[in-house]
Amino acid sequence: MGGGFVLQAMRRHKFNGRILPVNPRYPEIDGLPCFADLASIDGDVDLAVFAVPAATLRASIEAVPDGKVKSILVLSSGFSEVGAEGAKLEHELVDAVRAKNIRMVGPNSVGIVNLGIGLVATISQAFDRTDFPEGDIALVSQSGAFGTALVARGQQEGLGFRYFISTGNEADLRFTDLARSLIVRDDVRVLCGYLENVRDGAGFVELAQLAASLHKPIVVLKAGVTEAGSVAAKSHTGALVGSDEVAQAIFDTYDVIRATDGEHLLELLKMFERAPRAKGKRLAIVSHSGGAGVLAADAAENAGASLPLPPDGVKAQLTEKLAAYATISNPLDMTGAASLQANLMASCLRTMLESDAYDAGVLCVALIWREGENLLSELNALAESCDKPFAVSWSAPSDALAPRLRVARFPVVADPARAAGALARKLVHESAPSSVARARKPGTRVPSAELATTSGQIAVLERYGIALPRQVLATSLQEAEAFRAELDAPVVVKIAAPELLHRTEAGGVVVNVASADALARAYDGILARIKNTRVDGVLIQEMIGEGIQVFVGMKRDPTFGPIVAAGPGGTLVELFGKLAMRPAPVDPDQALAMLAGPPLDTLLGGFRGAKAFDRSALAQLISNVSYLALDAPELAEMEFNPVIVRPNGDGCVAVDYKFQA
Amino acid sequence: MGGGFVLQAMRRHKFNGRILPVNPRYPEIDGLPCFADLASIDGDVDLAVFAVPAATLRASIEAVPDGKVKSILVLSSGFSEVGAEGAKLEHELVDAVRAKNIRMVGPNSVGIVNLGIGLVATISQAFDRTDFPEGDIALVSQSGAFGTALVARGQQEGLGFRYFISTGNEADLRFTDLARSLIVRDDVRVLCGYLENVRDGAGFVELAQLAASLHKPIVVLKAGVTEAGSVAAKSHTGALVGSDEVAQAIFDTYDVIRATDGEHLLELLKMFERAPRAKGKRLAIVSHSGGAGVLAADAAENAGASLPLPPDGVKAQLTEKLAAYATISNPLDMTGAASLQANLMASCLRTMLESDAYDAGVLCVALIWREGENLLSELNALAESCDKPFAVSWSAPSDALAPRLRVARFPVVADPARAAGALARKLVHESAPSSVARARKPGTRVPSAELATTSGQIAVLERYGIALPRQVLATSLQEAEAFRAELDAPVVVKIAAPELLHRTEAGGVVVNVASADALARAYDGILARIKNTRVDGVLIQEMIGEGIQVFVGMKRDPTFGPIVAAGPGGTLVELFGKLAMRPAPVDPDQALAMLAGPPLDTLLGGFRGAKAFDRSALAQLISNVSYLALDAPELAEMEFNPVIVRPNGDGCVAVDYKFQA
Repeated sequence: MGGGFVLQAMRRHKFNGRILPVNPRYPEIDGLPCFADLASIDGDVDLAVFAVPAATLRASIEAVPDGKVKSILVLSSGFSEVGAEGAKLEHELVDAVRAKNIRMVGPNSVGIVNLGIGLVATISQAFDRTDFPEGDIALVSQSGAFGTALVARGQQEGLGFRYFISTGNEADLRFTDLARSLIVRDDVRVLCGYLENVRDGAGFVELAQLAASLHKPIVVLKAGVTEAGSVAAKSHTGALVGSDEVAQAIFDTYDVIRATDGEHLLELLKMFERAPRAKGKRLAIVSHSGGAGVLAADAAENAGASLPLPPDGVKAQLTEKLAAYATISNPLDMTGAASLQANLMASCLRTMLESDAYDAGVLCVALIWREGENLLSELNALAESCDKPFAVSWSAPSDALAPRLRVARFPVVADPARAAGALARKLVHESAPSSVARARKPGTRVPSAELATTSGQIAVLERYGIALPRQVLATSLQEAEAFRAELDAPVVVKIAAPELLHRTEAGGVVVNVASADALARAYDGILARIKNTRVDGVLIQEMIGEGIQVFVGMKRDPTFGPIVAAGPGGTLVELFGKLAMRPAPVDPDQALAMLAGPPLDTLLGGFRGAKAFDRSALAQLISNVSYLALDAPELAEMEFNPVIVRPNGDGCVAVDYKFQA
Repeated sequence: MGGGFVLQAMRRHKFNGRILPVNPRYPEIDGLPCFADLASIDGDVDLAVFAVPAATLRASIEAVPDGKVKSILVLSSGFSEVGAEGAKLEHELVDAVRAKNIRMVGPNSVGIVNLGIGLVATISQAFDRTDFPEGDIALVSQSGAFGTALVARGQQEGLGFRYFISTGNEADLRFTDLARSLIVRDDVRVLCGYLENVRDGAGFVELAQLAASLHKPIVVLKAGVTEAGSVAAKSHTGALVGSDEVAQAIFDTYDVIRATDGEHLLELLKMFERAPRAKGKRLAIVSHSGGAGVLAADAAENAGASLPLPPDGVKAQLTEKLAAYATISNPLDMTGAASLQANLMASCLRTMLESDAYDAGVLCVALIWREGENLLSELNALAESCDKPFAVSWSAPSDALAPRLRVARFPVVADPARAAGALARKLVHESAPSSVARARKPGTRVPSAELATTSGQIAVLERYGIALPRQVLATSLQEAEAFRAELDAPVVVKIAAPELLHRTEAGGVVVNVASADALARAYDGILARIKNTRVDGVLIQEMIGEGIQVFVGMKRDPTFGPIVAAGPGGTLVELFGKLAMRPAPVDPDQALAMLAGPPLDTLLGGFRGAKAFDRSALAQLISNVSYLALDAPELAEMEFNPVIVRPNGDGCVAVDYKFQA
């Protein structure tokens, strides 16, 4: 049945290549000569589409003459998505495909579409119709049904999807492979994706960097937001760094735009598809309804745009145009009188867009059934002559006008807040410094033996520039006391037992030890309490005074590799429950960016009028941790808590750390 | 011109009362006999609609014979919205109206509408058409243009707005008056509002309580989110409690539902208008697309619904219906095969709704052009026979089906996440304990003189049960030393100077004073440093040991009165920058609700495995502060920071406080 659907769809969309039905039971199908098998076809096949039962597929592949077929699309389901039996079939299918040097989309894909050539190899109902808007959007979707629903909904909104790929089970080609192959094409301007599971972290980063270098946006909708971090996680990092948080950190780092839902995705696509690139994020908001203007302003600021006031020259021009009681500001409230004058509305928007003070504009049109046609013409003309992006919020256009707004030369979204929010997101994206691919220094792998002992760990940390307190790893009370006496200040005494998980709870730490007697009591007490684990000695550390406590952690994500995280430290970790994150390697300037948001920014800025703390030393430490993570792949997690950050210029010290293999 | 619009609109909508045009220049208008002035009309007038120039309005009102006109609607603009001159006119207008005992909507209103009787007294284009869906929604809007745009957009989505009031400048009747008059009507099921400025805090609370008692939801869209708290604020409370935060606290306290944008408002209205009341918030999600189901689940959990797994009986029924590889869980993934079987989809949803395990359901329909008609019939039948609410996410219905979905017996929203989020919001609202109007104890006003001195303040705090440290207000070193010696523990020494703003910064505090000598030094030093302000003495306080630091504050909002706020205290206030808030009076159980969210819940719960802290003592203190705020109206702000909350059972102590008149 699937094959019949595909054949009909390809003919309906006037595929401009040859279609060769293959089915041993028929001499012809739908007027086309039918082949008994692939081997009977004369010449090479670019794409073979399979819609046969899962159980017979492997045999069909094995029967393909070597080199005859370049790639296949498997629509058939009944593979890994149905359980162990299907997974076995899928495994055999992959083996068969690899043996023939064939690349595969699927199985369990609803199809692939390239409307430019009429290649509509899909069983989706979305392509039952052929009256699609033209456009340069490519969608790669890990859900066939939801993906085609997005296409259909987008088409109803006037969005032109040129490519659609349902990735299916991704047994061979994955989301990232397919997206990379699309984004480099000249006829793709925006790539969007529906994602459940990024299987190929390095490939995804490569895709994002490719997109950035081509100045093409990637907009994704990713499911799985509420999936909590593993409850059984052994460290804070483990508990706080869930897989969705990691994906978000990757999106943030590589300027991938994440939509909150399908509606938001379509709104963002409209902005990127239909408005020119912005040079900055200064937004002018023009409205004939005070309310709509304020709502738009709220949303734009929230999404990161700035709303500068009009400069004097612009003010003068607007004052001349508008009634005395208009509010000449940003948002500009032209008042209700303007709603009856299309040319006035367009002209106010033009005045603001022509000013150097603005990079983009939003016009809020509340309800103007009477002047709609004129306004559309004026705005189409403006879009043609203006190289800055603008969006229009147009509530409830007339039935006659609605279809014409869908093909307007500018993006239209009904709600003012949503229009302004989506445009602001575009401005922020386009004015962000492009994330350049970093040359990763080939690191030297940290020897496993070194990570297994306390003295080895200390040596590694020192080598990677992660400052520890002055300390001695004592194996006798004499050694310990010699250190304390020389320091002549209170010390902390800690068991050095790398395999002990909860050192404090086990009674392995005594703080503020200020005399020889106290040290002896602490030393002996600790050794008496800690049993049944390897003990490397007892650490005697100086106590670190003034400073703030910061948490620095690392978790190795199975998809994206080491992720470095930071937040307020000590006992504040649980209180905040949220960390700034970035994939390794993190250079010091990137680490500074991690520290730039609340609450770390407030903490480091020396809040409460106090002095500022050594932000650059902390950034360097975070960077160093990220390089250590890359060079010590057997470490699953690292945790430095607290890192005491001292006043500016005095550096920072990792007072305590924990490694998790 | 405005008058002509209104006349045409009233006739178009077949107003079922008498329309009496008034205009001295014409003998008749549009076939109706025209009166020279209101006085010439025989009998009483229920509503007079004015569309005359602002400058002449007052005279027209003054010419109305006493008692002839009950209420007026003023469409004319040119009043306070245009500046000082207009404000003067508005003031005179209000005087004239009051003198005649007339109630007024406006000026600067775009009109009022009651579709039930064809009263369409508006200049808005939204009522150019008459083919409106019937419904029980009332909209009161502080923006005329945005309000009518919402009506028009809602109508396009199938929502039935029966009442619409544009409040204009609210010179007489305000948002709250108008909303209260509508919500009590039997033909209003849902009240929605667009708000910029709640002028009447007490009236708003009354409105919300009235709505709760009638089991009718209020859904508002409020502008002004990003408006920051006053920068010049003198206390943390002042800085952290902005007017939008206060409004949000009022909404939360009184179960008013806030939409994030116009689209969200319409989605929420669909849920309340078209689905029955829910008894709980356990939601079943049914989808034929795994992706859509996961997105819906994310959004529903985010909005506060719970997603219990199907009980065994339900599992068995579903297993029987579905293919072996469907995922029998919640979300239920029926797999793509179901998309071709309308009866199967409806039957799975029915099975889950019929179970006691669920209070409501969401069905996600990705794209089913082929089975659309059948599914709609099945679901309409389900809605008819089922007393639990369900919503359907239906992406991209066919052009033929779309208008029929707008009049379906159940709410339809295109995007699965948005459908589930909006329904979940409804469930949370309907299963929340209804906020009962509280009898406010008539408090005794705190004498001003008492608040002016340190000893008076201490007496007031003690009377209101706000525990302070053991302390003495010493006026001599002897007194101070006597207290310290008796306590026999380190003390804190603080200047008692009620008018001094920054006591610590001025050198007015010395902590950890542990001997007679140290006390003498601290006492004399403080008195030497603090000059040029009234000094009531020196406070000698015990030092409070174990406990956590909490911030409790109060700010008197000009609209809503005293707002009580709480958050992590000490130096953490700025770090979090967000407080839990509630309007006074706050009873201890309401205060407990303030403490139930992060980060306070984490802090009090005794995080890091530590013991829990005295949550009920803190709740009592917050409640006491709220009653003090009501009884001491001259205090603009109060701040208790830190309140040290001791381990469970040991109470809490306000270590430091600040009053701001």
